[in-house]
Amino acid sequence: LPFARVSDSDVAFFEQVMPGRVITNPEELKPFNVDWLKSVRGCSKLVLKPRTTAEVSQVLRYCYERNLAVNPQGGNTGLVGGSVPVFDEIILSTVLMNRIISFDKVSGILVCQAGCILEKLNEYLEEQGFIMPLDLGAKGSCHIGGNVATNAGGLRLLRYGCLRGTVLGLEVVLADGSALDCLASLRKDNTGYDLKQLFIGSEGTLGVITAVSVLCPQKPKAVNLAFLGCQSFAKVLETFTTCRAMLGEILSAYEFMDEKCMELVERHLKLSSPVTGNPFYVVIETSGSNSAHDEEKLNNFLEQAMTSGLVTDGTVATDEKKIKARNQRGTWFIEICLVCQMLWSLRERITEALTHDGYVYKYDISLPVGRLYDLVTDMRVRLGRSAKNVVGYGHLGDGNLHLNITAESYSHSLLDAIEPFVYEWTARHNGSISAEHGLGFKKKQFIQYSKPKEAVFLMQRLKAMLDPKGILNPYKTLPS
Amino acid sequence: LPFARVSDSDVAFFEQVMPGRVITNPEELKPFNVDWLKSVRGCSKLVLKPRTTAEVSQVLRYCYERNLAVNPQGGNTGLVGGSVPVFDEIILSTVLMNRIISFDKVSGILVCQAGCILEKLNEYLEEQGFIMPLDLGAKGSCHIGGNVATNAGGLRLLRYGCLRGTVLGLEVVLADGSALDCLASLRKDNTGYDLKQLFIGSEGTLGVITAVSVLCPQKPKAVNLAFLGCQSFAKVLETFTTCRAMLGEILSAYEFMDEKCMELVERHLKLSSPVTGNPFYVVIETSGSNSAHDEEKLNNFLEQAMTSGLVTDGTVATDEKKIKARNQRGTWFIEICLVCQMLWSLRERITEALTHDGYVYKYDISLPVGRLYDLVTDMRVRLGRSAKNVVGYGHLGDGNLHLNITAESYSHSLLDAIEPFVYEWTARHNGSISAEHGLGFKKKQFIQYSKPKEAVFLMQRLKAMLDPKGILNPYKTLPS
Repeated sequence: LPFARVSDSDVAFFEQVMPGRVITNPEELKPFNVDWLKSVRGCSKLVLKPRTTAEVSQVLRYCYERNLAVNPQGGNTGLVGGSVPVFDEIILSTVLMNRIISFDKVSGILVCQAGCILEKLNEYLEEQGFIMPLDLGAKGSCHIGGNVATNAGGLRLLRYGCLRGTVLGLEVVLADGSALDCLASLRKDNTGYDLKQLFIGSEGTLGVITAVSVLCPQKPKAVNLAFLGCQSFAKVLETFTTCRAMLGEILSAYEFMDEKCMELVERHLKLSSPVTGNPFYVVIETSGSNSAHDEEKLNNFLEQAMTSGLVTDGTVATDEKKIKARNQRGTWFIEICLVCQMLWSLRERITEALTHDGYVYKYDISLPVGRLYDLVTDMRVRLGRSAKNVVGYGHLGDGNLHLNITAESYSHSLLDAIEPFVYEWTARHNGSISAEHGLGFKKKQFIQYSKPKEAVFLMQRLKAMLDPKGILNPYKTLPS
Repeated sequence: LPFARVSDSDVAFFEQVMPGRVITNPEELKPFNVDWLKSVRGCSKLVLKPRTTAEVSQVLRYCYERNLAVNPQGGNTGLVGGSVPVFDEIILSTVLMNRIISFDKVSGILVCQAGCILEKLNEYLEEQGFIMPLDLGAKGSCHIGGNVATNAGGLRLLRYGCLRGTVLGLEVVLADGSALDCLASLRKDNTGYDLKQLFIGSEGTLGVITAVSVLCPQKPKAVNLAFLGCQSFAKVLETFTTCRAMLGEILSAYEFMDEKCMELVERHLKLSSPVTGNPFYVVIETSGSNSAHDEEKLNNFLEQAMTSGLVTDGTVATDEKKIKARNQRGTWFIEICLVCQMLWSLRERITEALTHDGYVYKYDISLPVGRLYDLVTDMRVRLGRSAKNVVGYGHLGDGNLHLNITAESYSHSLLDAIEPFVYEWTARHNGSISAEHGLGFKKKQFIQYSKPKEAVFLMQRLKAMLDPKGILNPYKTLPS
């Protein structure tokens, strides 16, 4: 696109707006130009680190007039190439916008700047008896602004719902530099159109989120984790419907992974699982307000799952570092062992383990839950020995499959064998080709597999209205 | 606005599109022209009753070309004059679009036409072990399409969240007659901008919702209700924080009403309350998967609330028609008595009781929960004897106050005493002048008390983009 190039006088202007927070040193620029997966790389010559909304406004007003393209960047943990420049866009990093503005203990409403790190926010809230409504593997470095801009899903969505419900307000700077204050702290507000929804999930293409207001749930008094083995995917599904009925309101996560995932986590990260020898593994988390009640519900469910043969063996851990396990001969034993986090890491670190296995082709698919694993099976048959590993895991409770294919290195012929097959398969089953990762740079051409052309056309009109010069995160999300 | 007038040839065209479903008889038109409160009245000469999305498309394509204004109408239960014509707009009623398209028991996802009645949907779901994620007083006649178009809140929002999270897909016909298919049945879908959010809460001004896809929670196995009396609003608040902490995940509603509400319900509807003599009453509902656990939690909470003096007396009912009550001397007794619905009706029928009290000035305000009742007290002092009754009730758990003022008949001077005072008061406390009712015709001029002018301007640009001739529900939602 015909954007202007960054000149020395531009740099001088920005240096005047935010002295000492303008990066032009090539070494320092490197990590901002490449994504976490190291799969896409830009060549921006300039990173800006504003501290305030007013500074973001000044930057965008200037860029809009000068026709300079801008790449908003949070923690740079995105998986679809949405967070790094495609060419030499100016990187606008929220890394210094990390101030907590307010927290109200009666309502549980947190207001903070966009650059706050998710895990830091959660730690802050836990001290006050609350938690963030979302949790994901990248929590140690992702920014809440980026989470909102990409409508991040993650592990707690099953329980606390999506960000479209829990984000109560946003402050956004538009392409022309004007600030839009929709930073309400109210659970209900039906005064006109809900503008903040435009920016949730728009991947930085319609505006730059500078502050968020989030409704935070109370910290559960009891958390239990069950790590279970299943002999088939049909049993994974039946275990899900059984546990949803028996655990009800305390079920807070239902994740699954196949044995290939487990192999990779063990091989590349040296983690060891207390449960082995099954084709599928399930992580079930409960969060509740009464530990005795929760344990009783969980035990009733486990008894039922074991006696009906849904689950072959499993391990149960509570927050209090106790672990109760049942071996394959059916006897329960209690030992002081792993904490919940260590069991969680078997599931949460799959993404990381995959990066050690070679080049990774990543797909993040929504499907009707009953057909979820068929795509993995079909893909494995289709690719045969041309792939190193074809693995499936994900948020089963939300119908969200992470399909990953590894190979020694990138190969065009393997890609051709995967795509568009994977997208056609998904479209045929009324799925979504991006459940939670977004479209970014890598998936934008495939939007038509999940959205009709009238919808894409309307999205393009929204983009043209809000960013007529197209300077915000260009080449992303929408097809050219 | 310079719309065309409906001519005989227009009527002939519509009669051809939907033979026998075109109403022009003045007697039959009457109920469509007046709102439920009988506070606003239009003079439309034409009601259309399409059965299919294709028919809605044909109607709107024709109206768009002819420049005929259209008033989409669901169950006509809105409280801000949004559902009836202002002048002679054609009324497009969803009354015959009442088909359930599909329901998936594994995912709990319901897909249905926009004209399905909320209560009917709930009954259908209950047979399959699920419920609708929303519930409100008008459930017996409101349409799900209207609920979504107005982003209805209601009694279950505290537990199941707002429609922006639970509505998974929409089918919408735009002003020019083109259909937009965003009727996905997936919990997660991050492929491009979430267009359906534009139409949720836009009160029929951006498009006509023809079908919805909704995520439905499981029907709780146990429902308990506590109806309690409190001696002050401070105690209502403290009871809320105590019960939120002790009931945790099973708390599904926390409603409050003042003694004036109770008087009106008793006087006008002849309902009688098992708890009397308190300035405030609270309705607490629990919904859970294990009745023994839920009862234990509720009993623990009630003991705590009674012994610490938060609550002076109360009645507890379960779904199984048993009722356990505690009188003012502190002894518990059990009797077969009212079912939950009868206790609920004390709260749910306040709106109806008010209509029997005279002319009603209605305000639906979001406020930080601690200041919620101050507005009622201030208003009572301000109006003195010029009002008949000033009452406050609402969804305390969501920070949502329904402030209602009655008088023998409408008076301009009383209105001047109430407005803009009520809006200024709300704005000063960072509240919203419409929590869940929307702006419709009656409140649109007051949007600036809750939204900055940049936001209103952007809303107007969205309206102009999606409905350039302004034919959809004109004179509503946005200021002229």
